[in-house]
Order: sequence, then structure tokens, then C-alpha cells
Amino acid sequence: MTRTPPYRDQFRAAVDTVRQEGRYRIFRDIRRKKGAFPCATWFKDDLKEQDITVWCSNDYLGMGQNECVVEAVKSAVDAAGTGSGGTRNISGTTRYHVQLEAELADLHGKDASLVFTSGYVANEAALSTMSKILPGLHILSDEMNHASMISGIRNARTHKHIFAHNDIADLEAKLKAIPVDAPKLIAFESVYSMDADIAPIEAICDLADTYNALTYIDEVHAVGMYGPRGGGICEQRALMDRIDIIQGTLAKAYGMIGGYIAADKVIVDAIRSLASGFIFTTSIPPSTAAGALRSVRILKISPEMRDQHQDRANALKARFRSAGYPFIDGDTHIVPLMVGDPVKCQAISDRLIEDYGIYAQPINFPTVPRGTERLRFTPSPFHTDAMMDELMAALSDVWAAYDLPREKVA
Amino acid sequence: MTRTPPYRDQFRAAVDTVRQEGRYRIFRDIRRKKGAFPCATWFKDDLKEQDITVWCSNDYLGMGQNECVVEAVKSAVDAAGTGSGGTRNISGTTRYHVQLEAELADLHGKDASLVFTSGYVANEAALSTMSKILPGLHILSDEMNHASMISGIRNARTHKHIFAHNDIADLEAKLKAIPVDAPKLIAFESVYSMDADIAPIEAICDLADTYNALTYIDEVHAVGMYGPRGGGICEQRALMDRIDIIQGTLAKAYGMIGGYIAADKVIVDAIRSLASGFIFTTSIPPSTAAGALRSVRILKISPEMRDQHQDRANALKARFRSAGYPFIDGDTHIVPLMVGDPVKCQAISDRLIEDYGIYAQPINFPTVPRGTERLRFTPSPFHTDAMMDELMAALSDVWAAYDLPREKVA
Repeated sequence: MTRTPPYRDQFRAAVDTVRQEGRYRIFRDIRRKKGAFPCATWFKDDLKEQDITVWCSNDYLGMGQNECVVEAVKSAVDAAGTGSGGTRNISGTTRYHVQLEAELADLHGKDASLVFTSGYVANEAALSTMSKILPGLHILSDEMNHASMISGIRNARTHKHIFAHNDIADLEAKLKAIPVDAPKLIAFESVYSMDADIAPIEAICDLADTYNALTYIDEVHAVGMYGPRGGGICEQRALMDRIDIIQGTLAKAYGMIGGYIAADKVIVDAIRSLASGFIFTTSIPPSTAAGALRSVRILKISPEMRDQHQDRANALKARFRSAGYPFIDGDTHIVPLMVGDPVKCQAISDRLIEDYGIYAQPINFPTVPRGTERLRFTPSPFHTDAMMDELMAALSDVWAAYDLPREKVA
Repeated sequence: MTRTPPYRDQFRAAVDTVRQEGRYRIFRDIRRKKGAFPCATWFKDDLKEQDITVWCSNDYLGMGQNECVVEAVKSAVDAAGTGSGGTRNISGTTRYHVQLEAELADLHGKDASLVFTSGYVANEAALSTMSKILPGLHILSDEMNHASMISGIRNARTHKHIFAHNDIADLEAKLKAIPVDAPKLIAFESVYSMDADIAPIEAICDLADTYNALTYIDEVHAVGMYGPRGGGICEQRALMDRIDIIQGTLAKAYGMIGGYIAADKVIVDAIRSLASGFIFTTSIPPSTAAGALRSVRILKISPEMRDQHQDRANALKARFRSAGYPFIDGDTHIVPLMVGDPVKCQAISDRLIEDYGIYAQPINFPTVPRGTERLRFTPSPFHTDAMMDELMAALSDVWAAYDLPREKVA
């Protein structure tokens, strides 16, 4: 008989608070079907299964089911086994890791790259280490930066300045107020995942030049999907050489898991040598590195996948637009449909999956600000017109059932 | 032409400092050979390869090459693809994750468990979240705790008390000094990886009862290897029910990657709902969960693997003992050979791999305190007597060449 933990009531109260705020998360238990992306099975409970179409995956290009990527993973497992068995320093660096880091450096036109166990850890470890190297560092951070950047900046325990989202004037005002001689770093994203908008990267780089600031960009929602070789928005806009540290992920468009930074070799070497979250953790499995390597190489030479992806996103946006739904009509592949209420957002999602087999997870606080709850659709090259027809029909029913507004109906 | 990053000299200076202190890390580029554990190939450079025997892997039982585990991984990749495509909340929970968490809960005799992307993240996320749930929390932390626990405790930004390593009297003195009504948590490890010793778990639990403190134990170097079903030292000593939160890893004895906590369901639910490092990151791949599930299940019913493991560790310790080497002669499977100098430690490691094909990575600061640099041997069930003969012969040469002491020679 396990003892009752002390303070158990306080843990319960914490959960109750989350529940009362309508943001208690119930994880959908699914299993994707390889070869049938974006179809999957939903395990409703231990007895019932239902076929569903996934509309909210960040495997944006379906590369997690690409036959070549799958084969690369399996053949590396056959050659080298499953886990790496150690930290990067203690027997956990393999040929696959070395090749992957060379490939990622090349992708971003940098000297070097460094792979972490996740994109979250890449941001946390890299940013929190910056202040060890640059004492007195001032970090300027976009207010909409991802939780992992916020965590890294917080843990850097140095001067922090939050600038208004994508607001160049506010960023410049804050840069101006910092002593000229103090080291500075501007941390921002290219594609903001929840609002689907893109940073004014060139203008930020101009300010970085003027005020002698390092530039750190998170391209996790862009790598693989933008730029001639999938190098992200910075590649698309020919700005990679103006960004000092490019952070990316292997877990979204590349269909694997893991994250990385690419930068000047001295910067990479310093972070490699000092970042706790890099040093003291088992490296990604050889097969993960092998799959990511294959995926990066495929997407480097597959601009048609990027075109199809944009085409499908545009098709969905056109339908939402003509049907008068309140969605964020941005320039990216992400299509957020605004609900603005956590309980309704959950209820709509429940109806869609239960009655129509359409899976779009509600996005509630703390992922987005309260009052901006939404369903976030991420159409891939494999979301067909027929799937969109089904989605629009289902949405029309459910939207009306919950008495939500449509601006116009075409 | 990429611009020269600002402050580049400071990054270089940081690396130079590491180098001057003799703790600049050169990662060995290896590839393990599935089916031939612990043998591997060392890629000396792009032209030369050398066969080596790995003596420093944390794949303690060779499960990363177990045929059943390999098959579980490959068949999950065939069924569901590679990456999960999302966070746990946004399409990244699969049947495999759900089954793995049920299995881990059962392993530790707890209601529930929660899987993180690594053991590092499990510690960091769980511990840093505790103070959100328990305001005014006092965390009592063993001075030898792993970097990930230190990071989590630091990021909890609450009252922190470091007690002397495994020192019950010091722990009690510190507990006594904390106000009776304040919430308390004692964080410690079962097996300390670098010194190979074991905590006085029962005595710590007694103090936790007396002072009404939560108990949090890191069993990453014990799960799979100790206890009738591989539940760790707490299972071996029948103390699992006295520990509130058991943290473990899938990346060592289980041969995969990922980490977890197991606890009362309310505690798990609170951490699940509030921990940034859990919420905002892509879940482990379905195939990683599938491989870990298989590995946990195999080791639950394989006490003979644990016996062989201890037998091999004892065999190496017996050889070191009779040859008079200064090693830590503890009760665990880890055999640290003390060098006490970072430059010599690196040099010995270099000689062993280059001249004898024996890979034992030097362990230098910050992984261990300065002056206690060591080679850390982790014999597995697959390290044969012949391999030990080779190791002893090589070590004898190299030890003499670097004029290091041996207490006696049998």
C-alpha cells in the first residue's frame, strides 16, 4: 500500500484550477497509419476505435511516413541498434550524428551545427548558456516567442527586454535604451506557430547591425517548408548570412524528433562545451539521426513538396474565406480558426472528432492567450479536396450548433 | 559571406578557457555494431576506421541491440511512421505512449506515469514545476545530484538546501531548521552514477515521514538493473511505496531514449498539466515508445540478465582489486578508475583507444569535481573474460607509462 503523498490536496487543487478554467487537457489516443497520412485510428477507449483524419499534425509534409525516411530509420536500427547508449561525450556520438550536423550546417550556410534532444531543449540550452559567455548580456525577446525560448531566457538570469510582437519601433526603442557597450541578443521566430505570421526579419537584422546585437532566430515552423532547399524563411529571403544563430527542429517538417542550432563554429563550440542541457543527456538515437539526415536531404531537392504544401494551405484558406469563418488569413501554411472560448473550443473539437472523424485539437491557454482559443489547421500536401469538402460540411454543422459567428456566407 | 557575429572573441575565450583547463571535449565518432555489443567501429577521421570495444556505454544491458526490442521499433515504424508529429496534446499521444505509461506505472507500483523526451527533461520539468504547485516549497537536494536535478531545482526558484552527500544527520539538521508548516521535498538519487554508491533510501524515507516531506528519487542508473522486476533499488529494497515520485530513464538499461516519472495520479496529472518542458515539446516517436515498452517488459521477467550484469561487474572489480588499481569499490555495476588529473585522464583514454582499441571516455569536470577525474567502466553482460584480459593488459602498460600509482600488485 503506497502512502498518501504529503500535500496531495494541493496537487489536486492545482489540477482543479486548470479544470475550472476549461483548459484541462485530455490527450487523444491515436495511431497514425503509415502510408495513409493524414489518416489515423482514434482509440476512443479500450474497446472502441474510430477512423479519423488528422488536421492538426506538425508533421507538416508527412515526412514521418515517407518511405525513404522510414527505410533510413530501419536500416540504421539494423546496423547500430536502437538507443545511442550515452551522452554525446560518453560513447553517444555516432557517424549518424556527425553527418547530420554537417548536413544541417550546410542547409543554413553555417560553419557548424549542434543537435539537441528536442527543439525545446535547443532553445532552452542555447539561450540560457548565452549569459555565461556574455556576462551582462541584454536579451531582447519578441513577446510571442515560444515557451522554450522564454524558458531559456528566464534561465539565463540576465537583463531581459520583451518587445511588442514584430514591432520594429518598439524593438529599436528598447535597443536604444541599453548601454552601447553592453552585449545584446535579439531572440525571435520566423513563423509564429499560433498566429501564422512572419517576423520582419530583414528590419530586425538592420537594427542588429546598428546596435551591434547578436541575432537568434527560431525557424522550427519553417525549416523544410520554405526556401529553395528548405532552409526556412531566412533562406527564402536570402537572410541566412545575417542571422548569427539559426535554431530549427527535426520533429516537424522533417518528421523525426530532435532540434538544433546552426552558427559560426566558435559559437557552436562554446555552447557545445557549456550548455548543461546539451552535455548531460543521452544523445538522440543513431536511427533518429539517420532518418533526419535522409529527410533533410530529400527536402533539399524537393521544391515541389513545398509548392504542394502551400497550394493545399491556400485551398483551405480560400474555403474558409468564402465561407466567412473568422480565421487568421496569413502568409503561411498554418490556418488558425478562432473560437475565443475555451469550453466551446473543446466542445467543437469533440463534436468534430466524435461525429465526423475530423481531428483538430483545441488550442487553449497557456499555448495561446485566454480569449483567443482556436482550432489550428495544418493542411499537408496529402490533405485532398475530398477531405476539405468533408471538413467544410462538418464545420458548418458544428459552428451553427454552437452559435458561433460567420462574417459572411458565400 | 556570413557576417562575423558580434562578440565572437568572447565565445572563443570561453572555449579557450575550457581548453586550458584540460576539459575540452572531443567527441569520439563511433558506430556500434548491432549483434556484436559491445563492439563498435571508431571513425578516427574520414579515412581511417578502427574496431573498438566500448567500455563506457550506459546501454548497461545491451538492450539497445536486443533483437526483440529492435523488432518492436521496426514494426512500430512500419505501422505508424517515424516521428509523432505533435506535442502530447496536439496529435502526439499514441497508443504506444499510453501503453508505455501504464507499463511504467505498474513497474513502480504507482497509479500513473508520465513520459518526457529525456531523463534530463523529466527531472528539470518535474522539479521546476513543484514550486508552482507548492508555494514556499523547500527543496532539500543531495550535493551530488545530477545536473538535471540541479537545473530543475534552480529553475523552481524556491528555498533550496543542499545536504552533504548521503548524510542523514546533515539532512535531518536541515529539515529541522525549516518551519514545520512549510512544504518540503527531498530530492536524491538511488545509484550515483559517477561514484557508484547508493543512497540510504530507507533512512531518508524515515526522515520524510517525520518531517512531512515529499520524496523524489532519481533511479536512472538503477531501473532495469535492480529489483525483482527491474524496478530499481527501491524495488530491491521494498521501498517503492515510500517514495512519492520515482524518476527513471528509457535511455540506459532500456536501450532507447526518453525519461519518466511515476507517482500518485494526482501528482502526475498536476505535472502533466503545468510543466512547460512536458507540454511544449514534440512527444517521443511511437517507435521509441514501442521499443521502450518491449524492453521494460523483457527486463521485468529477466532476472538472469541482472545476475549476469552483476557477475561481470564483480569480475572486473576483482581484477582491479587484485591488480591494485585505485578504483571505487562499490556495490553497483559502475566501476570508476580514479586518475585525478584531467590531462592524464584524457591521455590514458587516448592511448587505450588508439593503441588497444579500448574505449573508455575520460570523465572530467564539470561531470565530476576537479581533481577526481576518472575513467568510468560499465561492464555489461556481454563483456567477456577475454575482453577483460585485454583491458587489464592494456591498462597495465598505459598506467605505467603515465606513472600512475597502484596500491599493490597481486
